[in-house]
Amino acid sequence: MKDYCIAIHGGAGTILKSSLTPELENSYRNALKKAIDAGESILKDGGTSLDAVEKAIISLEDEPLLNAGRGAVFTNEGKHEMDACIMNGLDLSAGAVAGVSNVRNPISLSKAVMQQSEHVLLAGQGAMRFAEKVNAKFEKDEYFFVQMRYDQLLKAKETDSILLDHTQGEKNNKTKFGTVGAVALDRNGNLAAGTSTGGMTNKKYGRVGDSPVIGAGTYANNATCAISCTGHGEFFLRSVVAYDISCLMEYKGFTLKQACDKVVMDKLVKIGGEGGLIALDKNGNIELPFNSEGMYRAKKYANSEIFTAIYSD
Amino acid sequence: MKDYCIAIHGGAGTILKSSLTPELENSYRNALKKAIDAGESILKDGGTSLDAVEKAIISLEDEPLLNAGRGAVFTNEGKHEMDACIMNGLDLSAGAVAGVSNVRNPISLSKAVMQQSEHVLLAGQGAMRFAEKVNAKFEKDEYFFVQMRYDQLLKAKETDSILLDHTQGEKNNKTKFGTVGAVALDRNGNLAAGTSTGGMTNKKYGRVGDSPVIGAGTYANNATCAISCTGHGEFFLRSVVAYDISCLMEYKGFTLKQACDKVVMDKLVKIGGEGGLIALDKNGNIELPFNSEGMYRAKKYANSEIFTAIYSD
Repeated sequence: MKDYCIAIHGGAGTILKSSLTPELENSYRNALKKAIDAGESILKDGGTSLDAVEKAIISLEDEPLLNAGRGAVFTNEGKHEMDACIMNGLDLSAGAVAGVSNVRNPISLSKAVMQQSEHVLLAGQGAMRFAEKVNAKFEKDEYFFVQMRYDQLLKAKETDSILLDHTQGEKNNKTKFGTVGAVALDRNGNLAAGTSTGGMTNKKYGRVGDSPVIGAGTYANNATCAISCTGHGEFFLRSVVAYDISCLMEYKGFTLKQACDKVVMDKLVKIGGEGGLIALDKNGNIELPFNSEGMYRAKKYANSEIFTAIYSD
Repeated sequence: MKDYCIAIHGGAGTILKSSLTPELENSYRNALKKAIDAGESILKDGGTSLDAVEKAIISLEDEPLLNAGRGAVFTNEGKHEMDACIMNGLDLSAGAVAGVSNVRNPISLSKAVMQQSEHVLLAGQGAMRFAEKVNAKFEKDEYFFVQMRYDQLLKAKETDSILLDHTQGEKNNKTKFGTVGAVALDRNGNLAAGTSTGGMTNKKYGRVGDSPVIGAGTYANNATCAISCTGHGEFFLRSVVAYDISCLMEYKGFTLKQACDKVVMDKLVKIGGEGGLIALDKNGNIELPFNSEGMYRAKKYANSEIFTAIYSD
């Protein structure tokens, strides 16, 4: 029996020590620890990586600090439109939703799409009707109202900036790509990956990023790796980032680290694609690369201490 | 100066000689010829592959026989929800829309997303607001009403079958994956690809297939190839089909034909993914592989006769 491991992220971007108070930094680290604990509770009992990924992401979605689920940013119309995706490396099955509102846990809805429909990707109003059919948990608008997020919307509207998901603090001209994700390897050697996001503050026009797109923001294949991305989605979509890492391993014989370096630190940088990802291969190697200034991230192996980090170090 | 070439498809599936009258077969071949002519008119004047792909697909979208634009199939609610994507191999720029209604030419709206927004993929109501902003051409519901498509909806509703886009004729238990697409190489050596679809008859829940997803249904990269897919979208999404062909060429040194054979005739067949694709590499090699019984397809090189085909032969 192999042992298990899990890694998570809470978004990448301009995250500087100078812009986080010690209290806030502590809150972020606690949120990461809580999510790792949630995922690990599944894995240590012999549960599947798929369930562990879901449970870790539910914990991150329920956390108001992170841009997914409860803490999802506001769209231009003052709503929340969330995207999520989950993929099982065992059989390449996958489920995803784009542009859903009032769904408490988009990651669980993605899993329902995978397990209870013939489809892979459901969007908008139709996805909400599916959510009703499978009795997904809904929450009223108030649940998703986080003052910090609303202030971000007002600020973004002032400057008509669509793309910015401002971090709090002084450096308001900096960007943060709020997304959460998890990858896990279970005791049966199966990989899974999931991603969930509230998108970009002040976004218009039903913009969809890379998070719900298999091969772009999320991918898992037992033969290679499990990946969850966070960054400037448009560049991740055009670069088919997650599947590119898998292909470099499968077709070119790269190690996970070589593939991550090539895609995140070279290819993405060349086209201006800021962000990062978490990656895990079938042998339990974990990489947490990012080309931005920081990425909320954590990892844990069975019988070892949890690792959490925020800045580049 | 290289010379140009173009290839198009009008969908794959159970297309048997026994189920098409000679008149209907002739109509399909004429529709293919008209689209090739439209694309070629751009290429022979030294225009870009991007414009040629758009123009060929506009011709296919305006044709009621094909499941895209005017001939888009009916959703469960009696509406038309269309998806499209276009990608430029020169700089990997791309644009896509999912779940748009009443837009005459979704392929042109995709191009507007690429050229007039900061985004890559817009979905649903938001995408329609963007269409209004860029003055996209809208048509009333009547424009999209094609009796044959409506009969297909009634038939699909009888059996509550979601996935079937029935071909007319006797064999109503057969499936056809209605999608149109084009790939082109222009005289400057630039590749482009585009895909447009009306989805599946009687579809529910805002289902999105592979067509608007970069790397799955559509991909173009001057370094490798241009691809447009048609088939059972869920399998194409999970297999990241279009980018897989590009990666097999780039990372494993496969020829276009070897890559197409591997993906369409081996990998897709193994997971039950019925369909096909059109593929064109930077040297002007064209492949039109499919693992279904037929695929409406055509290709043309500068200074040669047009090739059109429907069945496996």
